[in-house]
Amino acid sequence: MYAPNPTAAPLPNGCQHAGPTAIVMLNLGGPQTIDDVGPYLERMFLDRELIPLPFQEQLGRFIARRRTPKIQRKYAQIGGGSPIYQWTQRQGQAMVKLLDQLSPETAPHRFYIAFRYANPLTADALQQMQADGIQRAVAFTQYPQWSCSTTGASLNELWRELLRLGLRDAFTWSVIDRWPTHPAFIEAVANKICEGLTYFPPAERGNVLLLFSAHSLPLSVIERGDAYPQEVAATVQAVMERLGFSHEFLLAYQSDIKPFKWLRPSTEQVIRALGAQRRRNVLIVPIAFTSDHIETLHEIDIEFAELAHELGITNFKRAPALNDDPCFIRALALIAAEHLRAEQLHSSQYKLRCPSCENAMCRTLINPAKSASSGRAGGALGWSETALSRAM
Amino acid sequence: MYAPNPTAAPLPNGCQHAGPTAIVMLNLGGPQTIDDVGPYLERMFLDRELIPLPFQEQLGRFIARRRTPKIQRKYAQIGGGSPIYQWTQRQGQAMVKLLDQLSPETAPHRFYIAFRYANPLTADALQQMQADGIQRAVAFTQYPQWSCSTTGASLNELWRELLRLGLRDAFTWSVIDRWPTHPAFIEAVANKICEGLTYFPPAERGNVLLLFSAHSLPLSVIERGDAYPQEVAATVQAVMERLGFSHEFLLAYQSDIKPFKWLRPSTEQVIRALGAQRRRNVLIVPIAFTSDHIETLHEIDIEFAELAHELGITNFKRAPALNDDPCFIRALALIAAEHLRAEQLHSSQYKLRCPSCENAMCRTLINPAKSASSGRAGGALGWSETALSRAM
Repeated sequence: MYAPNPTAAPLPNGCQHAGPTAIVMLNLGGPQTIDDVGPYLERMFLDRELIPLPFQEQLGRFIARRRTPKIQRKYAQIGGGSPIYQWTQRQGQAMVKLLDQLSPETAPHRFYIAFRYANPLTADALQQMQADGIQRAVAFTQYPQWSCSTTGASLNELWRELLRLGLRDAFTWSVIDRWPTHPAFIEAVANKICEGLTYFPPAERGNVLLLFSAHSLPLSVIERGDAYPQEVAATVQAVMERLGFSHEFLLAYQSDIKPFKWLRPSTEQVIRALGAQRRRNVLIVPIAFTSDHIETLHEIDIEFAELAHELGITNFKRAPALNDDPCFIRALALIAAEHLRAEQLHSSQYKLRCPSCENAMCRTLINPAKSASSGRAGGALGWSETALSRAM
Repeated sequence: MYAPNPTAAPLPNGCQHAGPTAIVMLNLGGPQTIDDVGPYLERMFLDRELIPLPFQEQLGRFIARRRTPKIQRKYAQIGGGSPIYQWTQRQGQAMVKLLDQLSPETAPHRFYIAFRYANPLTADALQQMQADGIQRAVAFTQYPQWSCSTTGASLNELWRELLRLGLRDAFTWSVIDRWPTHPAFIEAVANKICEGLTYFPPAERGNVLLLFSAHSLPLSVIERGDAYPQEVAATVQAVMERLGFSHEFLLAYQSDIKPFKWLRPSTEQVIRALGAQRRRNVLIVPIAFTSDHIETLHEIDIEFAELAHELGITNFKRAPALNDDPCFIRALALIAAEHLRAEQLHSSQYKLRCPSCENAMCRTLINPAKSASSGRAGGALGWSETALSRAM
């Protein structure tokens, strides 16, 4: 077990608390009902930071409308909507409860959900924070690995909405912008893999191939210098080290949309190849999202599972999503507590724009928290030791 | 400092030694003289496992001949040849000396150099091993990260040459096929970065951007499922964790050959973008080779340095290659000692062919060492603990 650093030292009576502290959970979100699918897709295809299109307004709306019935059918098959709101609610509630113990100096902690493409939207979160009298806020991405298409787009929306709503000076901010190899997160993923392995017949468990699958990105994003593939790969390595390289593993990328060129190998292509190689036991491990969503419940559990079955992959299973797993909640609380304790505005990478970035909005930080430093030097991700000073 | 696991417990008198043990150092090699450039390029362009071409024999020879004068000029500019043979000699000598202490049970250790495209070739190594009466051999790739284009091609050549020379049963083998995050290797790289930072004016050292650069690969190799980008990214992450994320960093890929599609972003493109962003301090860190070679001495030190200078990157420096650095020698010896002590034939990933592999030769292991296990379960890379058993 990863030993938490920020021990919950009780504060002396009468000691000044710095709270309340808002933990703003950033994620893409998902439609809660079938009727929400249209607006959800429209927000997505109108977002230049996710999917840059020529004639964005017109073409984006057109594509969203055209895809809506097909995507509605998929949501209908998984219960009529995305569970991401429910999971994020549960994660937030449990996280702040633990965080109050881990970081009494900044208690009480309140969580706010800011989805990029679904309710509650960023504006909803900000207005609620204002109503609650929040002053200090932490923007906490729920994507473990950085991408400008995910965390970047969410943060840019946050800064834009702050300005649009006239809340520029309402809150002071710091950002948890990535946590791809935080030991508590890695431990939670490793546990879920162990749980997934129990779905296999005992005699087969030693021969299971672990197929890590992350959402793909267009190659144009990768070529711009996005950190995503490096950080996803780092997560995979850390998980496998944690497991002692107990099983063979592969990393692939799912959910690409033709005809663009996307990051590969594609998960579907890999499943086909594994079928051709007569692999019989495959455990697919979602590695870039932390809750169940359509890519796990439909794309993996229905589409890929059917494909695998046709190909003769007898045991095709999925590791459970982290959802409200206590070990994952602990990771969220630890990451937030370490961030608050380190008094840093962001990771050492946040201010580094992609080499070929053309979006002037990127890597903004409006009204930075006064007590926090920009933390370039030393342990910027909070859980590492600085070894550099030796030679300097 | 990483604490070595295999302590040099002295053997009781009269105890049977298992040695001599051959450590066969696999690498691409390089032309030692200008006259060697032609044959070197010809071997390279005739290797289907590195560069598959239509009409390989004819087209490969043609391209090699056409490129020879240009490449000869580059080697002339770096002293008339590649230093990789000298560096590998020194690494081998120092490694086996330390290995004899770390692993007296398998002593004496002898190193043999098997280059894929330059002298000494694989056949030279095998014949010398036979002449020396070697029985037990370890094929030790000198590429830290796996790729079918590098380690894979070298190993396939090894197995082919064994058969061609009638040496199928002459030696028993095990393989060290990758070591992307071995702590002693990571420590050595981190030290070299610290050394590189001393090349900057003290006032600038905190603002240096670390640009990790690895040799690129064609996208076709990546799409086949090659582990290279995942393992390179893992090395970068481990080095940055070791450094406590002291500096901003990027990962890019160099040495692509037009007009094919290669893994990106390209190092050259990133340097151009950093120039446009008015970065003034860049430390480039070669991360996929361990000795100086034309990609460090010419492409980085001459070509990229000139480009950076033109772009106004005032301080463009390169971290020294590992070469005969004592910390790196220690890493090589530890990796070999841990491999021998673990009695494993290869890593847990070696037998896993790329999903879309069409090369039946791949992942062979001829005449495996009797005492070693195939090591699927548990600590297959030797330095990790198994955490899996909990759930099984």
